[in-house]
Amino acid sequence: MEQKIRGFIPYLPFFIPEAKNSAELAGEILDRAEMALPEVKVLAGGAGEGYSIRSTAGGYTVSGGDTGVLYGVHALLRSLYVKEPVREGEAVPYYPLRMLNHWDNMDGSVERGYAGLSLFFRNDRITWNETDMHRYGMMLSSTGINAVCLNNVNVHFPADRLITEDFLPELKKIADILRIYGVKLIISIDFSMPTRNGLDTADPLDERVARWWEKQTALVYSYIPDLAGYLVKADSEHRAGPYTYGRNHAEGANMLAKALKPFGGKLIWRCFVYDCGQDWRNHEIDRPKAAYDNYAWLDGQFDDNVILQIKNGPYDFQVREGVSPLLFAMPSTQKALEVQLAQEYTGHQIDLFFMAPQWQDIYDVMPKDKVQAICAVANVGDSVNWAGHDLALLNLYAFGSLAMTGEPRAEETAAAGAKLMFEDREAAETVKDMLLRSCRVYEDYASPFGLGWMVTPGLHYGVSCEGYEYDVWGTYHRANFEAVGIERGPGGTDMTSQYPEPLRSLYADIDTCPEELLLFFHRVRYDHVMKDGRTLLQRIYDNHFRGYEGAKELQARWLSLEGRIAEDVFLRIRDKFELQVANARRWCDTVNTYFYRHTGIPDEQGRKIWD
Amino acid sequence: MEQKIRGFIPYLPFFIPEAKNSAELAGEILDRAEMALPEVKVLAGGAGEGYSIRSTAGGYTVSGGDTGVLYGVHALLRSLYVKEPVREGEAVPYYPLRMLNHWDNMDGSVERGYAGLSLFFRNDRITWNETDMHRYGMMLSSTGINAVCLNNVNVHFPADRLITEDFLPELKKIADILRIYGVKLIISIDFSMPTRNGLDTADPLDERVARWWEKQTALVYSYIPDLAGYLVKADSEHRAGPYTYGRNHAEGANMLAKALKPFGGKLIWRCFVYDCGQDWRNHEIDRPKAAYDNYAWLDGQFDDNVILQIKNGPYDFQVREGVSPLLFAMPSTQKALEVQLAQEYTGHQIDLFFMAPQWQDIYDVMPKDKVQAICAVANVGDSVNWAGHDLALLNLYAFGSLAMTGEPRAEETAAAGAKLMFEDREAAETVKDMLLRSCRVYEDYASPFGLGWMVTPGLHYGVSCEGYEYDVWGTYHRANFEAVGIERGPGGTDMTSQYPEPLRSLYADIDTCPEELLLFFHRVRYDHVMKDGRTLLQRIYDNHFRGYEGAKELQARWLSLEGRIAEDVFLRIRDKFELQVANARRWCDTVNTYFYRHTGIPDEQGRKIWD
Repeated sequence: MEQKIRGFIPYLPFFIPEAKNSAELAGEILDRAEMALPEVKVLAGGAGEGYSIRSTAGGYTVSGGDTGVLYGVHALLRSLYVKEPVREGEAVPYYPLRMLNHWDNMDGSVERGYAGLSLFFRNDRITWNETDMHRYGMMLSSTGINAVCLNNVNVHFPADRLITEDFLPELKKIADILRIYGVKLIISIDFSMPTRNGLDTADPLDERVARWWEKQTALVYSYIPDLAGYLVKADSEHRAGPYTYGRNHAEGANMLAKALKPFGGKLIWRCFVYDCGQDWRNHEIDRPKAAYDNYAWLDGQFDDNVILQIKNGPYDFQVREGVSPLLFAMPSTQKALEVQLAQEYTGHQIDLFFMAPQWQDIYDVMPKDKVQAICAVANVGDSVNWAGHDLALLNLYAFGSLAMTGEPRAEETAAAGAKLMFEDREAAETVKDMLLRSCRVYEDYASPFGLGWMVTPGLHYGVSCEGYEYDVWGTYHRANFEAVGIERGPGGTDMTSQYPEPLRSLYADIDTCPEELLLFFHRVRYDHVMKDGRTLLQRIYDNHFRGYEGAKELQARWLSLEGRIAEDVFLRIRDKFELQVANARRWCDTVNTYFYRHTGIPDEQGRKIWD
Repeated sequence: MEQKIRGFIPYLPFFIPEAKNSAELAGEILDRAEMALPEVKVLAGGAGEGYSIRSTAGGYTVSGGDTGVLYGVHALLRSLYVKEPVREGEAVPYYPLRMLNHWDNMDGSVERGYAGLSLFFRNDRITWNETDMHRYGMMLSSTGINAVCLNNVNVHFPADRLITEDFLPELKKIADILRIYGVKLIISIDFSMPTRNGLDTADPLDERVARWWEKQTALVYSYIPDLAGYLVKADSEHRAGPYTYGRNHAEGANMLAKALKPFGGKLIWRCFVYDCGQDWRNHEIDRPKAAYDNYAWLDGQFDDNVILQIKNGPYDFQVREGVSPLLFAMPSTQKALEVQLAQEYTGHQIDLFFMAPQWQDIYDVMPKDKVQAICAVANVGDSVNWAGHDLALLNLYAFGSLAMTGEPRAEETAAAGAKLMFEDREAAETVKDMLLRSCRVYEDYASPFGLGWMVTPGLHYGVSCEGYEYDVWGTYHRANFEAVGIERGPGGTDMTSQYPEPLRSLYADIDTCPEELLLFFHRVRYDHVMKDGRTLLQRIYDNHFRGYEGAKELQARWLSLEGRIAEDVFLRIRDKFELQVANARRWCDTVNTYFYRHTGIPDEQGRKIWD
């Protein structure tokens, strides 16, 4: 196997540490770092994740809890490596639970994975490369992630047996490695599993079911005493759940939470529940309303070790969505924000898409105080650069930063990430600009005003304007000769009423709705005049032309770096940009032609729109 | 394995014959037939396929060539079984070569197969059930087919090695069985095969390549001395061919034909050659022109044992196409008509689609005297009823009848086929009507006026109005707010000029073009007034509503037969109709909504069109 890239830890070689815990590891990292260092003293004590960095006469002192000093040493080395001022003082991770969800299957495939095969599974077994596993732990610790779920939320056989003696001895080995890096395991479980293990039901109110989970959970904790908890996708996309047995989701979640409670485990319950078999002819059902409708009324009914994990948008990780209204609701319930590093709808780690600016948009709206944890769907696999696209790895870095600070800090993470990966200062500066621009470029060609879903069905890469239009997934735009979009204001599905004021009124009114979300919230005529005087149709044309030009500019900027950076990295990313530019052209031409065919109205500037 | 149905040979049980040749088999069939028979005398002699039936004092005499008497006995028994007058006199098969092409892969899958797995291959080996193989041969002999190709025209490894010692001993065993039934084998070959067997080229003008094929072909004939020949798909859909080496298709075909010539073999060369990587933005390339453009100019250049195999339409087995203009051209070249029993675009052997009426439409136009052979893509596999849908097996029966008589005889084959499968006379009468109506019903909901291609990409079952619209396959309709279709008259791609007069003028003019082909040949405004005074748009609506109603009527007619026929058959087909009615509804609603969204014009009769 090819040696993987060092990514955002350029100062550390790959190694299997002698350290047996995080505090020891902090010291060992200082010893092994391949860079000139001042004297650094580490003062560790306790289980805390906070740390402080203080300058001393000859260097620095990093003090804090066992995991805290590990984070502190990484932070210090990073600053020194990129030659930025060391940020002294106390630092405490913003979110206590900073999670990564792998969607890895035990056959080695990765659902929505664009970075090779699984780092953890192959041929229905737990299988891994020890050096890579340690490096993976090191990456997590470097960026501050403290809990990972290795198996897909869609639990396919035999992953439903991860909580049995079949796999626990092997899983324990991974837990023992990652613990050194301050990382705890989470396990995705299958709600129906009791039915395949001697019971005739998985009804959460059946005492036998509760006993089964208690017994099984005790077994799990006998192997992995610090397991962070279980992750559950229930009653979603054909998976069983409480609804299967006529129970509500609090009843389902609490039963599992009670099994975890004695061990300090959390029950992480995904709110991605909607009707995935809906009839396109039905205008009453509106998928983005589903999570709120399923959960909001249950506030106060969940046990205190239940966390509801809620996707950032009410649809499904589109390029641009309104923030999920469920994040504003349920004040008495613990909630985790879920974002997706895996670029399912954002270019498959072929097209460049740096996510921190998207998160900034979310955080500008999201009620931060109502969200207690954070999670991301992972974007790494066994590819040489971990993430398929070398630069996509910086989304993992940026996510860790967000989880640690509670702030997207797009500019800062782009700059730091670029400097960590590229020694050449001009290259780093160029890459930083490219990162910050990338998601706007992609949005320009791939998602007109929050419309979304114009993607190749199943695959989700590339354009298909009507790919999901007459399907069962509730993802419609109903474009016709005069208008496009679903009306979600009071005159339509009234989804906007799920938001509190002032957002409710802001989104409900086509004239106050932010334009980047116009087609997310409203059905709009093509001749609707936008704030700058151009029509919606003309703006669609303009954005798409601009997006394609933007992709070419990103490519040109990358090509300008030839000779400044390692050739293998240069060539890998060069190849990606060739694909991205072709993809951007297909998007631009197809979407523009699609709307041109519907309207017959040409581009005001006379640019070529194919007929 | 479940015992398969007797299908259109109800009077014969499954058996492994003692007969060693066709003439003996004719006698054995008379012995084994499970029906009351008069005295029948068989007089066989020679290799001929013709036969005569004469009534005698106590019964009948069947005389003819060895294979001829086999056909004659089947024809006689069929007439006696269905209690129709025996057709006395001479009968000579119309087409000397009556071929079936299986698209079976050696892994056991069947490309575009809707009837289970392969009857011949599994796990990259030649594998078959002996009783079923004899029954398959019996079916072929019953309906008059005399040559079959078992392996897919897309030759995937290891099928490219069928012509080597790896597989010839096993293939010979099948040839030895089918020979008893008057059936010869054909083998699909891969044009590039020499490059995987010691040569650095497959250039047809390279002497070493010609020698390689000569040697390999001699080996093949040492095992199967009566092989009918080779079948080749070259320079098509990413397969290598003469173009790969800068040669034309006559040069490619003749090289192979010369290797076959000493053994009396034919080289069957498919003309399904087109640009499968075209840009939808390009309005110059018009896929239906491709076969004519690639071949017509080569007339007179092919060796006399080359047969060009030409699909009935210039696209690809759509529900309705103009007849391929290539069938009118190349007077000095031998040509075979290729039709598709496998219901790739006609309902996947889920929706009922009896093909003889479609063939009637083709034969009403095709210059019959310019076509010397006939071929069909097979529709059978290892399913219990051979064809997935019990009634789909009658397409095989009807094809054999067409190949034997040179006439589609839709009414006659529907009636005879229904009587052979259903003893109850009312049931047979109902099924006959259903068969004859079925293809018109399907066309009503699935292919407005020859437009075609509104199918789910890849799968080709079910509706997707723009599924192929922005793709690379040259299959566009470019529907916009005012019109739909590709103009193929002189004002457009001028494809109509590939036809001889009077068809050329007939098709070129929107006012004389047959309406069922209007959108195959022309781009037409939705407000175009059709012959009956309704607009094109209204006709699209009307046809789709009628098609959905038609599917429900077919279903109702089938349900009315409960109790009159065997329950297993009744239930199997009942289940198919449930799927068909759902499919028809999706087609109807989706196509109507698609055009309604483009136009904003409601149905004149006020029926519900979803928005």
